[in-house]
Amino acid sequence: MIRATIWGENVHEKESDIVAEIYPNGMHSCIADAIRGDGIEAITATMDQPEHGLTEARLAETDVLVWWGHKAHGDVDDRIVERVAEAVWSGMGAIFLHSAHFSKPFKRLMGTPCNLSWREAGERERLWLTSRNHPIAAGLPDSFELEYEEMYGEPFGIPEPMETVFISWFQGGEVFRSGVTYKRGAGNVFYFRPGHETYPTYHDGNVHRVLQNAVRWAYNPAARIAQPTHAPNVPVDSAPEPLEERGPKLHKPGEEGYR
Amino acid sequence: MIRATIWGENVHEKESDIVAEIYPNGMHSCIADAIRGDGIEAITATMDQPEHGLTEARLAETDVLVWWGHKAHGDVDDRIVERVAEAVWSGMGAIFLHSAHFSKPFKRLMGTPCNLSWREAGERERLWLTSRNHPIAAGLPDSFELEYEEMYGEPFGIPEPMETVFISWFQGGEVFRSGVTYKRGAGNVFYFRPGHETYPTYHDGNVHRVLQNAVRWAYNPAARIAQPTHAPNVPVDSAPEPLEERGPKLHKPGEEGYR
Amino acid sequence: MIRATIWGENVHEKESDIVAEIYPNGMHSCIADAIRGDGIEAITATMDQPEHGLTEARLAETDVLVWWGHKAHGDVDDRIVERVAEAVWSGMGAIFLHSAHFSKPFKRLMGTPCNLSWREAGERERLWLTSRNHPIAAGLPDSFELEYEEMYGEPFGIPEPMETVFISWFQGGEVFRSGVTYKRGAGNVFYFRPGHETYPTYHDGNVHRVLQNAVRWAYNPAARIAQPTHAPNVPVDSAPEPLEERGPKLHKPGEEGYR
Amino acid sequence: MIRATIWGENVHEKESDIVAEIYPNGMHSCIADAIRGDGIEAITATMDQPEHGLTEARLAETDVLVWWGHKAHGDVDDRIVERVAEAVWSGMGAIFLHSAHFSKPFKRLMGTPCNLSWREAGERERLWLTSRNHPIAAGLPDSFELEYEEMYGEPFGIPEPMETVFISWFQGGEVFRSGVTYKRGAGNVFYFRPGHETYPTYHDGNVHRVLQNAVRWAYNPAARIAQPTHAPNVPVDSAPEPLEERGPKLHKPGEEGYR
Repeated sequence: MIRATIWGENVHEKESDIVAEIYPNGMHSCIADAIRGDGIEAITATMDQPEHGLTEARLAETDVLVWWGHKAHGDVDDRIVERVAEAVWSGMGAIFLHSAHFSKPFKRLMGTPCNLSWREAGERERLWLTSRNHPIAAGLPDSFELEYEEMYGEPFGIPEPMETVFISWFQGGEVFRSGVTYKRGAGNVFYFRPGHETYPTYHDGNVHRVLQNAVRWAYNPAARIAQPTHAPNVPVDSAPEPLEERGPKLHKPGEEGYR
Repeated sequence: MIRATIWGENVHEKESDIVAEIYPNGMHSCIADAIRGDGIEAITATMDQPEHGLTEARLAETDVLVWWGHKAHGDVDDRIVERVAEAVWSGMGAIFLHSAHFSKPFKRLMGTPCNLSWREAGERERLWLTSRNHPIAAGLPDSFELEYEEMYGEPFGIPEPMETVFISWFQGGEVFRSGVTYKRGAGNVFYFRPGHETYPTYHDGNVHRVLQNAVRWAYNPAARIAQPTHAPNVPVDSAPEPLEERGPKLHKPGEEGYR
Repeated sequence: MIRATIWGENVHEKESDIVAEIYPNGMHSCIADAIRGDGIEAITATMDQPEHGLTEARLAETDVLVWWGHKAHGDVDDRIVERVAEAVWSGMGAIFLHSAHFSKPFKRLMGTPCNLSWREAGERERLWLTSRNHPIAAGLPDSFELEYEEMYGEPFGIPEPMETVFISWFQGGEVFRSGVTYKRGAGNVFYFRPGHETYPTYHDGNVHRVLQNAVRWAYNPAARIAQPTHAPNVPVDSAPEPLEERGPKLHKPGEEGYR
Repeated sequence: MIRATIWGENVHEKESDIVAEIYPNGMHSCIADAIRGDGIEAITATMDQPEHGLTEARLAETDVLVWWGHKAHGDVDDRIVERVAEAVWSGMGAIFLHSAHFSKPFKRLMGTPCNLSWREAGERERLWLTSRNHPIAAGLPDSFELEYEEMYGEPFGIPEPMETVFISWFQGGEVFRSGVTYKRGAGNVFYFRPGHETYPTYHDGNVHRVLQNAVRWAYNPAARIAQPTHAPNVPVDSAPEPLEERGPKLHKPGEEGYR
């Protein structure tokens, strides 16, 4: 059983009647419902919970974290961001949705601005598959459409992906790398573009399929790495090959490295 | 003329007689001397200067920043780290040397722990070229040796590189990806492993050649991107293709996006 | 159940008493025995069979092909090489072992010389993991040794890998990227270095684990792509968006493209 | 001075009045005129010349080869294809234009089908820059348009690029990775999509700029690698570290490896 945690900012749903009507139980609940099943458990966490719902214990029991945020990016506690990053490095999968391109943990993991151009005009988006038979595209046709979406346009300020899985065509004339994969430490990372809060994107069957596939793809069954940032000293007498110490030294025996 | 700025932490040189003897004018000066010439200007900056010597003005006039730090990683001001990252995204080249694998700006740009194993035993290191005729290896043989070096061992906690240029063999039995390239925004990034402070690595001719080549490789002659993190709204009437606005909206006309 | 086919050249085993003693039933049989089990079926095919044992029917029923060849690379029929390449593009996984770096199908899929330096001296090899928790390394320590192996040295003439999973240290002073992954069409490709015919490498437990893991990793459960080289024409009236034909044309309606 | 050779199939120009009118001196001449200047020499070669105009001597004096072919892909001599591939591996740059996605040397270097979907309807193409300040995009805006072009659509059967530089939007609803870079051996490779023979694409100023930039980017000033496919034996007494030969051997002293 893969354990997914769907994190929702849960702000628009409370402030906007439009969003509340489309997602009466919150976007996170709709996303969790879409992901749950066929060997995947899905629970939710929201920003207003203690530690944003992402305690050490919760992350330890999360195989794949799915993140939707937008208006309150700046309110996410930096300590939780580091905790999420460490969990990814230790092997937790992470999926960032739509406006989460500007979320703190995504930017933290990418090391780049993650910026783009955008337009909120309810235009048609068509996602094209660029990597046939990629596990994230299982069961999908070579392209599918979302009739109403926000436009995100290139240049998208991300590192070159491990693989580009989807590229979007927009009615207004732009293109965007809408599905991109990365590895960060032992963690698999996927960014998926669609999902503007004022449109019913997370009720779409093809989007559901991408989400389910992505959770399966991001899941790393290996035991979590215990100390993913540890930099161990290897004493001379533990070197794989016999070695005689030579030359001047700065560090004293048994001393920790600087960081 | 390419303008390189060599940043040195400049702490070991003042605290350790061993380091001071090898690098009487500081490691940064020795590195600058090695890089200077043949169309490259090289000046230095050190941590004890105001703003660590890396003012907005200085970075604006730096084509390639070379970074050596170790003991005082934690003392580098986070605002300067962000300033360096923004300069890289806008097109400044950046070269990180040896223990700078754990420097704040390198970790910021990688999005990973950048950890490794290590041993200070004055052992022999042999660097092997893995990408023949790579510009960073111009004029170098397929391998070269450093008789005394600190060991850094895999697994090295970095993202998969754009290109792996060098891999090191160590006498004690380890290996390490010693020369790796990345692109972050418009900026070229190179990490180069050798350079422990208690050995004369920066007096070595092959190392000099790598440093000079790397500065040339990292140099991006294009004008710096003015606002490398900007995410512009494209109004409906500026869309490349004629477009009629539809559907519900969250953002008011002219409003900035959330971040 | 994953269906693996282990292809063996099966020449050294018949010509060399040394090899025959280590692998009395052929290297392919030993490799198949190591891979079989835990949800993997493993059968063998050899060069001396009709169509080298790799008929269309056989490849259609092969999820992952494992290839060991050396002395008779040049005797492999070019039509079979193309057949294997097409199967990979359509989704079959492929694992190339040791001297298969110079096999026709590996070179065909890489598009590069795949050359290296080598020495047959029974020296110690130590493989280091460079991508922690990679599925191919499941259950393995950060490094493991093979006491007797042939040396392969960098530069290795391959394209930059999707991921570098292992790097080898050799007693004689060289290093080598010993585990590298690629994607070619819908097919996952893995190259794994160890396996010289005069040493008992394929009797080693850690090597067994890598082989099993690699087969699981390379397996793509999606249905094979029917025509992996097809370049379909999209008629104007089937364009996703309404389109009016304009301008001069070279192709007649319904005509195939040139290739 | 960079020496570019522009190779043209030169068939459509002789068979089609439409193409002859747009490119009265042949497409290759128009492309050479666009590239020539500012430190670049550009000469042409065509398929009807002896050895297709690509003799050993000519390739030895070519820094960057630019290739346009379409109707006669199948008529290109396989020995010339290997010669071109070897030149690339040894350090020659190579730029493949438009329908050259199906040329023999491009497919040879990629190791994949290089297939796509297509439509000849004179539709609008808009190329978006995905890698800001990339040298190949020097002096170009974030997007530019070609009013009449053939459509090429994803999925494009190529390996994951080193960098994706351009992505195209098409009026009929498709997208395409229109500018992609690779490294093959010591050679830099660039594919650029636009350039259908019945439209005036190679008279466009932005296209000229891409072509000039790409030639500069692809140029590797290092001396050509003499034997790019050589796999040298390293005798035991030439090993970098002292080594005593052990274990059984297959190869006799001084023997060449199998290939």
